[in-house]
Amino acid sequence: MVSAGIGAVTPNGNTGEFYSLSDAELNRVVALTVESAGGATVIAGVGHDAARAARLATEAAGLGAHAVMVHQPVHPYQSQQGWVDYHRTVAEAVPGLGVVCYLRSPLITAKALKDLTGACPNVVGVKYAVPDPVRFAEMAAEVPEVTWVCGLAESWAPFYWPGGARGYTSGLVVILPELSLRLLDRLQAGDTGGAMELWRLLKPIEDLRARHGNGNNVSVLKEALAQLGVCRRDVRPPISPLPDSERDEVTAVLRSLRLPVGAA
Amino acid sequence: MVSAGIGAVTPNGNTGEFYSLSDAELNRVVALTVESAGGATVIAGVGHDAARAARLATEAAGLGAHAVMVHQPVHPYQSQQGWVDYHRTVAEAVPGLGVVCYLRSPLITAKALKDLTGACPNVVGVKYAVPDPVRFAEMAAEVPEVTWVCGLAESWAPFYWPGGARGYTSGLVVILPELSLRLLDRLQAGDTGGAMELWRLLKPIEDLRARHGNGNNVSVLKEALAQLGVCRRDVRPPISPLPDSERDEVTAVLRSLRLPVGAA
Repeated sequence: MVSAGIGAVTPNGNTGEFYSLSDAELNRVVALTVESAGGATVIAGVGHDAARAARLATEAAGLGAHAVMVHQPVHPYQSQQGWVDYHRTVAEAVPGLGVVCYLRSPLITAKALKDLTGACPNVVGVKYAVPDPVRFAEMAAEVPEVTWVCGLAESWAPFYWPGGARGYTSGLVVILPELSLRLLDRLQAGDTGGAMELWRLLKPIEDLRARHGNGNNVSVLKEALAQLGVCRRDVRPPISPLPDSERDEVTAVLRSLRLPVGAA
Repeated sequence: MVSAGIGAVTPNGNTGEFYSLSDAELNRVVALTVESAGGATVIAGVGHDAARAARLATEAAGLGAHAVMVHQPVHPYQSQQGWVDYHRTVAEAVPGLGVVCYLRSPLITAKALKDLTGACPNVVGVKYAVPDPVRFAEMAAEVPEVTWVCGLAESWAPFYWPGGARGYTSGLVVILPELSLRLLDRLQAGDTGGAMELWRLLKPIEDLRARHGNGNNVSVLKEALAQLGVCRRDVRPPISPLPDSERDEVTAVLRSLRLPVGAA
């Protein structure tokens, strides 16, 4: 990914099965990423209860991460003030690091976000993952002091771009960094037609990931990496490796993209 | 609660802010509950990644809990097989304890549940929290070997009852055990009219809890407990204590139910 030109990497994001790793494993992933990131910015995912999130952030800082991405709180309920306080706890634990909030709830308002950025100048970005480009555009306009990132990956990036997205998260990037970077290039150039051409190219594999209520999200990528000879296809419960029929679909998609599928 | 006649208590459920507690705190809550539960069944909430959930279950068993309730996995994605494997990991760690699954995703099928009960005879109950009584009735009919519990508390209990609910979860029970037990009694007696009369009585406080996308869910109960002189109103981020205006609404509801509101 870094050789291909990716400028920012996120160890311990959803694709990295954040929620299935122990603290020791999470820290090992950060350390290995810092070691291999070259010049890329390392944005370590942190989360769980506020105290654990703050501790993970401090440990990531010690391991050389440049920033942290705070996963949406796992708590089933949240309030505006509670959301602000949660993120403050993390941001204040690592004043020297950039902090990116991962917003998945439409209940969190621009006001809450402004309260947070007012209190914590190191909150520099938002990964916005509510599937609503209108709301995204409104939020981005109201809080221009942070960088807005489409948190729903390539599938949604072209539709968040007009509202102020300046980047997007990606799982696909672990198998197809060049394709993802070409999409970014077209979006930055304002070439919507060119962007949509690439969008159509990557849509089949993103659709396969979205299947079964996103149950395939990570497993498709691990399967692809296994077929490309990069790593094992194993994932941990509550997700599972793909059945044979879907493995064949991954093979077909990779072949259509002319990727060197081996015997895995 | 136990003096009032509650037969089963769940330390480390959502009302207990499960997701905001450390393992040491979770275990202390189980120990204190076992100590004060008298003859009531203690069903300890466990969760997070599979390994941590299994470890918490083992520790709860060691502390004297009779059963565990497995919170829905926090992982943003799950597959049928992954869901089965996750719960198997926990159930097999405590073969001598009853296991209750907490189902919040409509994607988990009766087949997955049957695979689990087939493999793990100690899976004895389901807390079903998908707001869909039709689906609840279908699932309950397809997997009759477990006890089905309405996981959406008193508000939904009367509507899950015809489909096979034999109990319901409750947060309200921490302040109004008698009212909740009267509802149970009416439901067990098949007295729908009587049940709905009680339902209308408890609806205002449940509505207040549901406000702000359920952001008030726990805070209203803590506020009520504080006003009743039982404990402090503190909650941890990402939730927050109620603002003054809503504190007054809690006072009004408690007064209408003739509960002894003190100066808190």
